[in-house]
Amino acid sequence: MLGRSARAAIETGIGDDAAVLRLSGRVVWTVDAAVEGVHFDRRFMTLDDVGFRSFQAAVSDLAAMGARPVAALSALALPERFSDRDLERLLRGQAEAARALGCPIVGGNFTRASELSIHTTALGSARSPLTRSGARVGDELWLLGDVGLAAAGLAALTAGRTRGAALARCVAAFRRPSARLEDGAALVGRARAALDVSDGLAGDAGHLARASGVRAVISAEQLTRALRPELVRAAASLDRAPLELALYGGEDYALLAVGPAARRPPRAAAIGWIERGRGVVLEVGGRRRALGGGYDHFAR
Amino acid sequence: MLGRSARAAIETGIGDDAAVLRLSGRVVWTVDAAVEGVHFDRRFMTLDDVGFRSFQAAVSDLAAMGARPVAALSALALPERFSDRDLERLLRGQAEAARALGCPIVGGNFTRASELSIHTTALGSARSPLTRSGARVGDELWLLGDVGLAAAGLAALTAGRTRGAALARCVAAFRRPSARLEDGAALVGRARAALDVSDGLAGDAGHLARASGVRAVISAEQLTRALRPELVRAAASLDRAPLELALYGGEDYALLAVGPAARRPPRAAAIGWIERGRGVVLEVGGRRRALGGGYDHFAR
Repeated sequence: MLGRSARAAIETGIGDDAAVLRLSGRVVWTVDAAVEGVHFDRRFMTLDDVGFRSFQAAVSDLAAMGARPVAALSALALPERFSDRDLERLLRGQAEAARALGCPIVGGNFTRASELSIHTTALGSARSPLTRSGARVGDELWLLGDVGLAAAGLAALTAGRTRGAALARCVAAFRRPSARLEDGAALVGRARAALDVSDGLAGDAGHLARASGVRAVISAEQLTRALRPELVRAAASLDRAPLELALYGGEDYALLAVGPAARRPPRAAAIGWIERGRGVVLEVGGRRRALGGGYDHFAR
Repeated sequence: MLGRSARAAIETGIGDDAAVLRLSGRVVWTVDAAVEGVHFDRRFMTLDDVGFRSFQAAVSDLAAMGARPVAALSALALPERFSDRDLERLLRGQAEAARALGCPIVGGNFTRASELSIHTTALGSARSPLTRSGARVGDELWLLGDVGLAAAGLAALTAGRTRGAALARCVAAFRRPSARLEDGAALVGRARAALDVSDGLAGDAGHLARASGVRAVISAEQLTRALRPELVRAAASLDRAPLELALYGGEDYALLAVGPAARRPPRAAAIGWIERGRGVVLEVGGRRRALGGGYDHFAR
């Protein structure tokens, strides 16, 4: 049970100028885009997947704030060649995700456009929202959920090599990610800052470090221990380094958080720590490699 | 003063995974799209206008519900050729509208896309939101604000004939519409149903009639009296009928409402009434003409 919400009730749903909700307390609000050719490629996923994934991606921002979903609006821009059957598939994927996340779609918008895109805006409630700032020197860096699988899945689809359990697991992670609402809720009262990994672990650790005015150190050894065996096997069959997929692959929608070691949630893996300074570094066997984020040279 | 809001405060703005607001009471929530080539044409308006107009259009849905704006998120999809200077102009127009409406932009999203589009999602607070249903037989049909000017403005721009005060007024109405927040607030406690005129008076009267299970009768005589003199002059110089522009031209963002005659707000013009039946009819000199909405033949 997530159970840390403000009270919320839906009074008017789809069909009027606007949805009507009754809310009380702190509200967290996000909007997220999924554009064909930028965020998805229909050669690699069905329209059900597109609807499901875009909805999960939007709600993932609520998870990263430690919020519980209240409701969402879906704005669809549909090209002329988009059939009613196509629309049904897209809506079915969204509805499936909305059900799984307990986040009903209460309205939205339709428009013609030359390319397919989905904008999802979601409201959540959170007594104590987790922001990106607040990390302190000495905090641990925590990972909740998997990284690298979605990137491996996309690489496998692009290469046309998706046979075997490990690659199939990666393809599923790419097509059907899950917003980590329970993990986000478990961070409240424990973490000092959090965000979801949508751009890749290295880049998102950089966002957190910048917002908090600190340096994030990722331990290659700790991160490697946290990787799924399927990622290691998939990387081998794709001739890629698992650590590279984990650091630079986005769209798994894992959560990255920081907090004191004593408060680490049971399901979080410690993958590094916070230091004075700025940017993100990877520590490999006592040596350090900059991962961008304003720290772009080898340090010792 | 609008003064009928629930309490609302913005705690975290742009830059985190989501915006954080503190809300208490009834909340009204909408999302609206402006897509290049569908909703606007850059030959006829600047990017400042595009930003201003798309923001006003989104907030107009709050006005139609009798709500007071709390905040907005702006999601921009930008083509590759879109320059930083272009972006500045677009944001400047949005910011101007946000200031004018008292509706701060507290976050949003950027993405690449092949075409320019803006999705604006807005939250408002309203003790008693006005929906589209609730019209009763015997109610008056009220118009607040102008209709037809924006359509005349677009027609003038398309024809390349914008000289003269009347056409200039119409072009301004097209490029710089205003969400009628004060009129919407004045409807609360008076109107039984309301919506904003974005598709055209005939079509939107049809939406209201359908949602309420009634027939809307528009009196050509009353509507003609409510038209702006500039529309009549502009229509003459464009060789169009003013009533046609008023009935079928959208995007003025006037408000259409229904309620008992005794409760008509001072600034509302009565342009018709509600009957048993369905659809929308125009009454011209005792004869009736169907305006669509499920009532598609001449009636007496």
